[in-house]
Amino acid sequence: MAAEKNVGLVLLNSSLSPFGQRCSIALAEKGLPHEYVEEDLAAKSDLLLRSNPIYKQVPVLLHDGRTIIESLIILQYLDEAFPDTRPLLPTDPYERAQARFWADYVDKKVYGCGSRLYMIKGEPQVPANIEMAGILKTLEGELGEKEFFGGEHGFGFLDIALVPFSTWFESFDKFWGVGVAEVAPKLAAWAARCMERESVSKNVFSPEKVSDFIGEMRKDLGIE
Amino acid sequence: MAAEKNVGLVLLNSSLSPFGQRCSIALAEKGLPHEYVEEDLAAKSDLLLRSNPIYKQVPVLLHDGRTIIESLIILQYLDEAFPDTRPLLPTDPYERAQARFWADYVDKKVYGCGSRLYMIKGEPQVPANIEMAGILKTLEGELGEKEFFGGEHGFGFLDIALVPFSTWFESFDKFWGVGVAEVAPKLAAWAARCMERESVSKNVFSPEKVSDFIGEMRKDLGIE
Repeated sequence: MAAEKNVGLVLLNSSLSPFGQRCSIALAEKGLPHEYVEEDLAAKSDLLLRSNPIYKQVPVLLHDGRTIIESLIILQYLDEAFPDTRPLLPTDPYERAQARFWADYVDKKVYGCGSRLYMIKGEPQVPANIEMAGILKTLEGELGEKEFFGGEHGFGFLDIALVPFSTWFESFDKFWGVGVAEVAPKLAAWAARCMERESVSKNVFSPEKVSDFIGEMRKDLGIE
Repeated sequence: MAAEKNVGLVLLNSSLSPFGQRCSIALAEKGLPHEYVEEDLAAKSDLLLRSNPIYKQVPVLLHDGRTIIESLIILQYLDEAFPDTRPLLPTDPYERAQARFWADYVDKKVYGCGSRLYMIKGEPQVPANIEMAGILKTLEGELGEKEFFGGEHGFGFLDIALVPFSTWFESFDKFWGVGVAEVAPKLAAWAARCMERESVSKNVFSPEKVSDFIGEMRKDLGIE
């Protein structure tokens, strides 16, 4: 698809949002041109508030003026609305169900536990650290010896769902003593492989920037 | 599909679970024969623990020995693995995204807020009541003048996602003063229409039974 072709896509996003990063990566993998609108989350646009009155959050995809919300739903929509582009989900129904299950696991566990870690005061709390280490080991078990979670189809739906959070790995170690390279070395290697893709490196923050951001946020919140 | 035909499906379930009820309703709507295993949640079977080591929860669908987990993922799997059966999701990509969005909203909001209501001690707390009333009105807005959420396709994915929770409506009124018939009369009428379907009435509990169950649970927990 020529980059010039307008296919009527607008992404309302915040470059900070791991969920928004998923959408940018997916659009890049599919080679879908789109208008990108960076939202100021402290002063959200009328278009964002009107498009997503339920959650008032990014990312929001507009396609010919119609609204699609929730990052994983946006990824599936892109597969279904643009069937001639590189698919993100596998074709086999069972493999599709597995990819959906693990992407949901990322939302519930990596984001859920990661967000709790952010708010911990003082020394790392052992239970949350142990939980996060277990989550990472579980994901590494699912990856197995594969290059990407998408298996024979390469970098795909689950890779895109998880990769924005891989930029948190360094912070897991720095702030809470969860050393991903020790706990889940194959997952750490997978994250490095993902970073070699332009679709990823252009759309996620560097681990250093994430670490600085978390440090600042924790100071602002009076956590340390 | 003849009821005798074995298509290799086993559902590990608890008839109490609204998520499990979704799967039973979907299988009935699709006319898919299956082995039904009622799990004792106080003494889960080895098969359940082995099939779903991550969450150790029902529902679990086994298909030729392979495991599919999470009710909404199971519904989509049934559409994809049995394409000759009555589809649950619409065919249009945008309508599919909308159905997925609102089903996710049911999980986050109706289940989320409903579960919090269960645990409220003493007099109904106004904020949770107001939130639930808002959620029901929002869903009613999405239903509009349609007979079912599935629109021209009739009873479908979102109807199945929401209908098990409609048996909580009477309890919302009885325990917490959220009168669904007043707050969202079209949604109450939709729930009554759903109950006329055998796929629903055979697989959900009656509102009275749900109300008794909640009352017992609250007594056991010392909430009232």
